[in-house]
Amino acid sequence: MSETRPRIGFVGLGIMGRPMVRNLMRAGYDVTVHDVNRAAVDELVAEGAHAGESARGVAAATDVFISMVPDSPDAEAVYGGPGGAFEAARPGWLAIDMSSISPTVARSLAERATAAGAQMLDAPVSGGDKGAIAGTLSIMVGGDAAAFERAQPILQAMGKTIVHCGGPGAGQVVKVCNQVVVALVIQAVSEGLVLGAKAGVNPERIVEVLQGGLASTRVLEMRQTNMLGGHFDPGFRVRLHLKDLANALALARDAGVVLPATALVEQQMEALKVAGRADLDHSSLITILEDLAHYSVANGAIER
Amino acid sequence: MSETRPRIGFVGLGIMGRPMVRNLMRAGYDVTVHDVNRAAVDELVAEGAHAGESARGVAAATDVFISMVPDSPDAEAVYGGPGGAFEAARPGWLAIDMSSISPTVARSLAERATAAGAQMLDAPVSGGDKGAIAGTLSIMVGGDAAAFERAQPILQAMGKTIVHCGGPGAGQVVKVCNQVVVALVIQAVSEGLVLGAKAGVNPERIVEVLQGGLASTRVLEMRQTNMLGGHFDPGFRVRLHLKDLANALALARDAGVVLPATALVEQQMEALKVAGRADLDHSSLITILEDLAHYSVANGAIER
Repeated sequence: MSETRPRIGFVGLGIMGRPMVRNLMRAGYDVTVHDVNRAAVDELVAEGAHAGESARGVAAATDVFISMVPDSPDAEAVYGGPGGAFEAARPGWLAIDMSSISPTVARSLAERATAAGAQMLDAPVSGGDKGAIAGTLSIMVGGDAAAFERAQPILQAMGKTIVHCGGPGAGQVVKVCNQVVVALVIQAVSEGLVLGAKAGVNPERIVEVLQGGLASTRVLEMRQTNMLGGHFDPGFRVRLHLKDLANALALARDAGVVLPATALVEQQMEALKVAGRADLDHSSLITILEDLAHYSVANGAIER
Repeated sequence: MSETRPRIGFVGLGIMGRPMVRNLMRAGYDVTVHDVNRAAVDELVAEGAHAGESARGVAAATDVFISMVPDSPDAEAVYGGPGGAFEAARPGWLAIDMSSISPTVARSLAERATAAGAQMLDAPVSGGDKGAIAGTLSIMVGGDAAAFERAQPILQAMGKTIVHCGGPGAGQVVKVCNQVVVALVIQAVSEGLVLGAKAGVNPERIVEVLQGGLASTRVLEMRQTNMLGGHFDPGFRVRLHLKDLANALALARDAGVVLPATALVEQQMEALKVAGRADLDHSSLITILEDLAHYSVANGAIER
């Protein structure tokens, strides 16, 4: 298999997938794309991509197959469903699932790829649509070292920090850990801000002190404008973070780990969904505490 | 009141108070000290301090009175008890309580000082004994602006980042917010680390990914050696952090704020105390999750 320039297949052309395909083309790769949304396919074909009729068709026509879909059932369908990519799996074929899905599902997909003589990596990302557009995603990779080496130049076209986390599923495990920490840190700074503000202190002074010492977090650095201003345009949607926390709690059950604060914060995020805020930025987690306190950090007392 | 070089009184010569007095003397201040521990007084007298017989005696002999004691009841005794500093309160006298105590108690002490025609600031610190020795403490100040201006040069002899947070009690409010955020962030990174490690990923890879993105925290930067190595020499003792969380929950009740994660993490810290770990560093919070998972990030499976 000569692969100085492998042909790439890409399935899943959403807000993340489209700019990732563009960065692959910019790096000189020939890319064949597929999505149930025909408009997204047409958009990229107009920019130089080829169109595939199904995941199976894309997989058959290319050397390296990349997927970027919303959730575990979507990934199972893309790979294992009728017309799925695994119908074209063969020795020498490499699949890279960059979706954020259940680590257990990722391991099961990797086993099936290996059984067909192919290679598979799980390679979820962080950095959002901005990182996808800029080609600066962080990519967490699970799978064997040879497959990781083969994927490196391709991943480098889409991301900046690329970490080989371990064997199959390890990328998804680390992604889930990352999302647990981000959710709990949002809750942490929210509790501090609502307490201090309702107790009468200017929230900007609180931020100044927190960020000057051991309490300092990237979350408050990046989201203080949202949280102090009461504006929660996404950003990273509550709906997606809830999915990640569900994956975390499922992994915890599988692994035999107890996560009391993750369980609590998952329920706080469920409360956001109940309140109709699932499409706001995840920093809107502070609004549940604000509702409970009848007090908004941005606007003062809340009447109902 | 000529105060180009005010005489300073200092009560509370513990692990924090002693180096703070040394930094005041190094800056050229004449300092009179008192503590129930006579050895601590003698130590500082040998280095050039004067000895006072009581808080009242120290307050009467000096222009600016500083206290650094463990908790609210200690501060109430130093100021309001028999032989307390308020017995010498007078117009022009300035009291600065640098202890970390209840914001409600701090406000009540400030009211009594004001009623005697004196000035009072609450000015709790962060940065620990290392910051006290180096003179690099962060100091959060509550009280009126004139008193803050008067205290500035004195505080600068002991700290680096000095923030005027608002009126009486505001320094203690912000300190409590800071401690809430630190505790919850320790819990956050602990849940991520125990989950990922027991699910089979090298914890150093997890730290690498977390610190490279939105999950990045100063807590993990400063405490990763403790948490990955299973060594928890203080540092900042669980016992003291528990006191701060009790102050946070009391303030929340007073202010009408609901703090579900703080309540949960306070109970996790109580579990540390029950387990006999109250004098370990607060990063030992991870050990409660490790006990629940029967798995240590540093050493693998825990048998019992």
